[in-house]
Amino acid sequence: MPVRIGITLGDRAGIGPEIVRAALSSKSLSAAAEYVVVGKYPDCSLGVPSLETGRAAAAALEEAVTLARRGEFDAVVTGPVHKARMYEAGFKFPGQTEFFAERCRVKNFAMCLTGGKLTVALVTTHISLSDVPRVLKQSEIVRVGLLLAEFLRRRSENAPQIAVAGLNPHAGESGKLGREEIEIIAPAIAELNESRITNHESRPVFHGPVSPDTVFHRAVEGEFDAVLCMYHDQGLIPLKPT
Amino acid sequence: MPVRIGITLGDRAGIGPEIVRAALSSKSLSAAAEYVVVGKYPDCSLGVPSLETGRAAAAALEEAVTLARRGEFDAVVTGPVHKARMYEAGFKFPGQTEFFAERCRVKNFAMCLTGGKLTVALVTTHISLSDVPRVLKQSEIVRVGLLLAEFLRRRSENAPQIAVAGLNPHAGESGKLGREEIEIIAPAIAELNESRITNHESRPVFHGPVSPDTVFHRAVEGEFDAVLCMYHDQGLIPLKPT
Repeated sequence: MPVRIGITLGDRAGIGPEIVRAALSSKSLSAAAEYVVVGKYPDCSLGVPSLETGRAAAAALEEAVTLARRGEFDAVVTGPVHKARMYEAGFKFPGQTEFFAERCRVKNFAMCLTGGKLTVALVTTHISLSDVPRVLKQSEIVRVGLLLAEFLRRRSENAPQIAVAGLNPHAGESGKLGREEIEIIAPAIAELNESRITNHESRPVFHGPVSPDTVFHRAVEGEFDAVLCMYHDQGLIPLKPT
Repeated sequence: MPVRIGITLGDRAGIGPEIVRAALSSKSLSAAAEYVVVGKYPDCSLGVPSLETGRAAAAALEEAVTLARRGEFDAVVTGPVHKARMYEAGFKFPGQTEFFAERCRVKNFAMCLTGGKLTVALVTTHISLSDVPRVLKQSEIVRVGLLLAEFLRRRSENAPQIAVAGLNPHAGESGKLGREEIEIIAPAIAELNESRITNHESRPVFHGPVSPDTVFHRAVEGEFDAVLCMYHDQGLIPLKPT
């Protein structure tokens, strides 16, 4: 049986319907999957999200998660929404990720992005840069590191090699440019490598802290299967082609 | 007359001599330039920088800057050095950049990197990430922005379009993910655009604050000639090919 993937349209007034249509006509779609679009087309002015389009976007998310929980979808792809209009329509979550987590009763989740030759997971996400050093905790690096390892294992990578990025320039240069690598990140890597996540053969290996300005190039060249990132832009900047 | 470019070898025990030799045999070298290698080859064990190789690396820098100040070089390219060994050999600067600035009596300088389709300049450089929000000042963004505009003008880009990156995810998302864009970066952009840097026709235009996770892609696609970056890894991560 083919895998079934639900695709929500996102906000009707935005770019969602257009890119969903383009994606569905792409030749790179897997023949082993079936794609189901979820969402209504209310009247709207393109580029002007309304209460109506926000409500339809939220309804599509509810429908998609219901079908996923019933087992009718194996995965859901979400189109871009307009948060302010969704909030006005009664949507009560910071974002789509938190919505899916709550509806699926999942507390342990993370933001992971994969595309092209690069896979990244983020230890901290939508917070200001000045909050990152304060929020960064050994326990969170370990938690997200374990989720990333599990993701790679399911993607059938045996004994995945995971790079853990440093926080500071040159990964702190032996403490001269910041001490988080020594005090937080290196101990987290040791803890990750000591934990018995899977059976011995397919056990992931965590490397680092690796200098942030070279780690993504090394991952793309095949040295690492994924990079565990300390903050939002560290992981998202290298994902866009440059 | 061709431009003359001096190239220092860096530390003899490191990768410097090898990459300088490879670079000089590259077909992409400009025929309009003449390249002069500066540096001695002391005895050494490869991979083991010594007091001797550190002293030779420092001497090559002194020789290069002397020739440049005499007008015999139009520019200098520096090979990689081993700082600890250079310090032991009496080198008293944080890095090669500061050495050149002092010897040339230049106080107003910045770190600018250009390669492939991307040019970036850094407002803050070798400091810990936690220091960045505190150190980031409107006056520094303006100062480095003006230097970047001048660099682009000399590279003969008329009316260069310069993107100014935000500091926070999504450039702060209207203040919800940090207020530096509103309080520091946007006022700096306004000040830069009000300043009369060059004559009217070739005046640079500063855009932003632009979301850091899309600005480099947009620059590479040709929308901007350069990106003014708020911190080291923001600018260096996208420079390495991914």
